[in-house]
Amino acid sequence: MNAEDIQAHIDGLAKPRGSLGRIETLAVRLGTIQGSLAPRTSPRRIVLFAADHGVVAAGVTAWPQDVTGLMVATIASGRAASSVLARVTQTDLRLIDVGTAGDPLNDPPAWYRHAAIQPGSANLASGPALSEAAFEAAWVVGVEEADAAADAGHVVVAAGEMGIGNTTPSACLMMLLADLPLDLAVGPGAGADDAVMAAKRTVVVAAVGRARAYPRDGLKAAIASVAGLEIAAMAGFFARAAARERTILLDGFITTAAALVAERLAPGTAGRMIAAHRSAEPGHRAALAHLGLEPMLDLDMRLGEGTGALVAMPFLDAAAAISGQMARLSDLGVGRHD
Amino acid sequence: MNAEDIQAHIDGLAKPRGSLGRIETLAVRLGTIQGSLAPRTSPRRIVLFAADHGVVAAGVTAWPQDVTGLMVATIASGRAASSVLARVTQTDLRLIDVGTAGDPLNDPPAWYRHAAIQPGSANLASGPALSEAAFEAAWVVGVEEADAAADAGHVVVAAGEMGIGNTTPSACLMMLLADLPLDLAVGPGAGADDAVMAAKRTVVVAAVGRARAYPRDGLKAAIASVAGLEIAAMAGFFARAAARERTILLDGFITTAAALVAERLAPGTAGRMIAAHRSAEPGHRAALAHLGLEPMLDLDMRLGEGTGALVAMPFLDAAAAISGQMARLSDLGVGRHD
Repeated sequence: MNAEDIQAHIDGLAKPRGSLGRIETLAVRLGTIQGSLAPRTSPRRIVLFAADHGVVAAGVTAWPQDVTGLMVATIASGRAASSVLARVTQTDLRLIDVGTAGDPLNDPPAWYRHAAIQPGSANLASGPALSEAAFEAAWVVGVEEADAAADAGHVVVAAGEMGIGNTTPSACLMMLLADLPLDLAVGPGAGADDAVMAAKRTVVVAAVGRARAYPRDGLKAAIASVAGLEIAAMAGFFARAAARERTILLDGFITTAAALVAERLAPGTAGRMIAAHRSAEPGHRAALAHLGLEPMLDLDMRLGEGTGALVAMPFLDAAAAISGQMARLSDLGVGRHD
Repeated sequence: MNAEDIQAHIDGLAKPRGSLGRIETLAVRLGTIQGSLAPRTSPRRIVLFAADHGVVAAGVTAWPQDVTGLMVATIASGRAASSVLARVTQTDLRLIDVGTAGDPLNDPPAWYRHAAIQPGSANLASGPALSEAAFEAAWVVGVEEADAAADAGHVVVAAGEMGIGNTTPSACLMMLLADLPLDLAVGPGAGADDAVMAAKRTVVVAAVGRARAYPRDGLKAAIASVAGLEIAAMAGFFARAAARERTILLDGFITTAAALVAERLAPGTAGRMIAAHRSAEPGHRAALAHLGLEPMLDLDMRLGEGTGALVAMPFLDAAAAISGQMARLSDLGVGRHD
């Protein structure tokens, strides 16, 4: 059951050819990933990975670092954007601290896991963000979460992130792994004035220069030098989720940086991905194109926490239902007239 | 509770300002319509109105007229795009024959109603499509359906349509009521080659010319002369749904023609509408702008049957949940940094 078979099936349904627009494109992609005319979209899970970033000391963001921990607590309380959207889209939610600077949550919900590798990354403005060992340890946490999701029967999985400052390592990774130009890679993130944007550009140029100087056999160390713990964890999550034959719904800018890492270290991972939306960050579309992905929705979102993937979940349901439940035009005794 | 109050509430939530993009725009619109920071989006109902169009005899569509009746039967069987999408979005579905050329359905479901005014409209290429009396009778069916939906407690309502040939009267109405130029008003509909498009343009120009020649006090007769029974019914449905203070989710091209009729005959109706999506028909965005509406999604859809509204229903849920359930940034003790 390949893409051509699925396309022929969708074209034969009781509607003018192509008249459901992007819902049809999505149905073909979903069916192709699952090798099925009746793809499944639930049960499903999103795993949010949180970590801090030493680079905030370089003035690359307007928000203070302790917002990471405050938002982790808010997610856990069920009152963050991600927790609200997970409920409303019937998506199982997990929250993993892979390295925030603060303490573990007091009295956390059962779906919270404290798996901090270290209290945040180092400042990539002045040296490697992560050692190769720290990168690998975070990757393993992501692998464990993908295995847990697959073992629990989740057919669709997504990842999201919380980490003040994390558009900066993401911009570095997009330049390093997808050859994005600086002006596309560096955007305003969660809100940045001209001074913050200038600081961010300076830091990114220098860090990418150092990462590109690693020897050819030092790719993982080069990636680690401009990564973050939640990015490494999401990359491991994606790589294992693809190996476990899950359908991966990809969120926005930061998760796409993690997807680039996963695809480079575990080629083929992007073949099981659907890009939920185009983020407001300028480089997102180009980074997705590097993975062979085209975004489904364009909602001008830039929040993170996996919110773009969550908003897109019902579109998967619609596309799957169209493919699996509609009559064929030939059942009606009607020929094609389009 | 006006639009400014709702905007201030959304801006105060625990996220960078504006970072949920169009979900925030939608939350403001939904909250403003309902006058609430915790708007409701269910229970909800879509009512599909079906009718035939004499103008198909003028060669304005590639599809034969009996497809209207076949699709009515397919919707009733639960296997049309609309029936599938209504199920998957938990939207109550009703199907009303206000004037197809065929017989009533045998053994119909309880949510089907045969309320045919006459077996289709007359051919507007050579005379009025509907008498004023037929227009008013179809309008009343729509009013009854809006009352029934409101009485049953549906807080969100949508309308959809099935009627081979109905982009032609819709194009006429958009020229007559929203001053669209011919090239924007006439599009390919469900699929049309150059010859069909040329025929459609010729018919539309002539019919709109005749409609514009009605005296000033003959507006309703002028509208009826280029309308269709399902369009008249949807217009009545929208007008009464607004009067009953429902939130109206507006579908695509044909339903927007009906919305223009409703707004002209019952001013203020569009103030309770949310435009679900921009249809692939070229004139849709301009017609929406005439109503003061901006489409939420752009999915290149052009199927009809209310499918654009149905696909958009979960976005209403997301926007409502964001507004009603998220923490405020001030609850976290964090100042704004954007």
